[in-house]
Amino acid sequence: MKAVVRRGTALIATEIADVVPSPGQVLVKTLACGICGSDLHAVHHLDTLVAMNRRAGSASSLDPAHDLVMGHEFCAEVLDHGPNTDTRIRPGTRVVSVPLAIGPNGPETIGYSSRFPGGFAERMALTEATLLEVPNGLRSEYAAMVEPMAVGAHAVEAADLSGQPVALVIGCGPVGLAVIAALKRRGVEPVVASDYSRARRRMAKTMGADIVVDPAETSPHQHWAGFDVPATLAELGLARITGRVGRSPLIFECVGVPGLLQAIIEGGPPLAQVIVVGVCMEEDRLVPALAIIKQIRLRFVLGYTPDEFARTLRDVAEGVIDVAPMYSGTVGLSGVAAAFAALASPEDRVKIIVDPRQV
Amino acid sequence: MKAVVRRGTALIATEIADVVPSPGQVLVKTLACGICGSDLHAVHHLDTLVAMNRRAGSASSLDPAHDLVMGHEFCAEVLDHGPNTDTRIRPGTRVVSVPLAIGPNGPETIGYSSRFPGGFAERMALTEATLLEVPNGLRSEYAAMVEPMAVGAHAVEAADLSGQPVALVIGCGPVGLAVIAALKRRGVEPVVASDYSRARRRMAKTMGADIVVDPAETSPHQHWAGFDVPATLAELGLARITGRVGRSPLIFECVGVPGLLQAIIEGGPPLAQVIVVGVCMEEDRLVPALAIIKQIRLRFVLGYTPDEFARTLRDVAEGVIDVAPMYSGTVGLSGVAAAFAALASPEDRVKIIVDPRQV
Repeated sequence: MKAVVRRGTALIATEIADVVPSPGQVLVKTLACGICGSDLHAVHHLDTLVAMNRRAGSASSLDPAHDLVMGHEFCAEVLDHGPNTDTRIRPGTRVVSVPLAIGPNGPETIGYSSRFPGGFAERMALTEATLLEVPNGLRSEYAAMVEPMAVGAHAVEAADLSGQPVALVIGCGPVGLAVIAALKRRGVEPVVASDYSRARRRMAKTMGADIVVDPAETSPHQHWAGFDVPATLAELGLARITGRVGRSPLIFECVGVPGLLQAIIEGGPPLAQVIVVGVCMEEDRLVPALAIIKQIRLRFVLGYTPDEFARTLRDVAEGVIDVAPMYSGTVGLSGVAAAFAALASPEDRVKIIVDPRQV
Repeated sequence: MKAVVRRGTALIATEIADVVPSPGQVLVKTLACGICGSDLHAVHHLDTLVAMNRRAGSASSLDPAHDLVMGHEFCAEVLDHGPNTDTRIRPGTRVVSVPLAIGPNGPETIGYSSRFPGGFAERMALTEATLLEVPNGLRSEYAAMVEPMAVGAHAVEAADLSGQPVALVIGCGPVGLAVIAALKRRGVEPVVASDYSRARRRMAKTMGADIVVDPAETSPHQHWAGFDVPATLAELGLARITGRVGRSPLIFECVGVPGLLQAIIEGGPPLAQVIVVGVCMEEDRLVPALAIIKQIRLRFVLGYTPDEFARTLRDVAEGVIDVAPMYSGTVGLSGVAAAFAALASPEDRVKIIVDPRQV
């Protein structure tokens, strides 16, 4: 079958062996598959990614020396059922799924596996138990965007939304935008969004941000006091003594560069709840005593649960979350390498979809 | 009045000007005041402590160049009421209180203030609104220990106790012991406690730890799997797919040295909830990507709320929390310097109480 493989640090459109569904798997035809920021990173730094996962205790069989077919944000059409399936979803049905398969050593991520090729290929083998039908005639390109939007839903689900939070989203790439959409879905207001790029700030507004900030001009932390968040230790102390506690500060770190966590701890308000969604692969430094004095919460999150994924599918299909503004066009397999290059300097491109049926 | 002052890095028993209650304050006679680990630190590193608090945005007037009367874990007897008080607590009543006073620049901590001397002095001026009567004839020495026990209550209150947590307490000094007591108060089981000192491990058992571990011999993380906590990413992934999620890991960091957070992130199980109670004053390093892959929560906590303090007073007075094993004796003002020196190598001493009525 046709696929794009990562080989060394190149992306090559080529023929690979067709997939054969294992027990419990379904053979599908890929209709649409989004390019994720982690894919951009993996092209050049797959060794680091694998080493980090091993260090965290992952038993994944992913071998950076082998050809890798990436793509974990997919919509597909059921072709055939493998052994030990209950064939509940008929061939021809469009489906999405969490990108999870069970290998001999445990769970593997489809699209980051040497065993299970991802959506930058004509066909995939998916886990039958995880398949969800695409409802409401939702376009396949948009169905493929359920996965990144679920990342935002998970990040917001991880937050404590009691205390009428005021939210700040730092970084308005696809992850930050998904967080903004999920916050608005949950009725959080205001949502302040911060990004150096004018195009990304505009997109943040489109996805629901109430206020956008260019951190080159204004500290995003200047907004807290205006929304009744105790912004200093003295204000917090007085608020507690008078019993007027104020609203709670909720920050989403959607960038993932060293130094940003410490900048939030130092520049942000006390009692800040920080959901860390941006993946910083390098060692980072922080001053625990400052985090203690300000009683900061850091919650590191990744992915989503099957429930959050299913809920996000409903939200997108019913138009409660509108992903259309984030859709930046479709390419065929021969256009994948150029799309990766274009996304390296994103500006107004957010989500490019790969359709392996196109050349 | 008689007091012990920190001057330079020495503790000196001397005469100081008597305190005069400000509006809203009550004049009290100190009956008992515990020596805290932060007092031991402050003798030598008050400059650092003050600089760190300023950096966090504190407006405290504490000046390390002035004589400082420490002592924030106190039980006292009401002597007289200052201006603008409602005199609801009669002279002769024994009281405890959160060590908080309102200065001209906002809240200050009694015992870490150049304006409001702490409990290592014959008399103090306390905030009337925060006073709580000592009930049930609770001994003054034990009433003074409500404050450190409230630190443990606050740390446990900050934890998410849904998910039938298995708890690990790292470090069994006074803070770790207070956490153990609070965990048992909330019915958490098992509580695993880890400390290099045999005497402290014995004390942890006395305060309710179900299992104690010498980290020089055994990793405290070997206990997770035995209590149905998914201890690896593969176990977690499988548990989620099968719907058998298992119990949740809850770790209390009660030491406060650089490197320990990263050791927990790297050595502990995925989804670990880490409550950081130990105060690490130095810059620390961690690898955010590992915390992301394992979806770690770090919650930095300090002190307690007035509610948690009041609840702890009730628990101690009613014997629900027994502080007697942590009581290591009483000294007069002339014995304070020696007590500080003794606590620098604690072993089986936990809490030494100062009684300023004694010489």
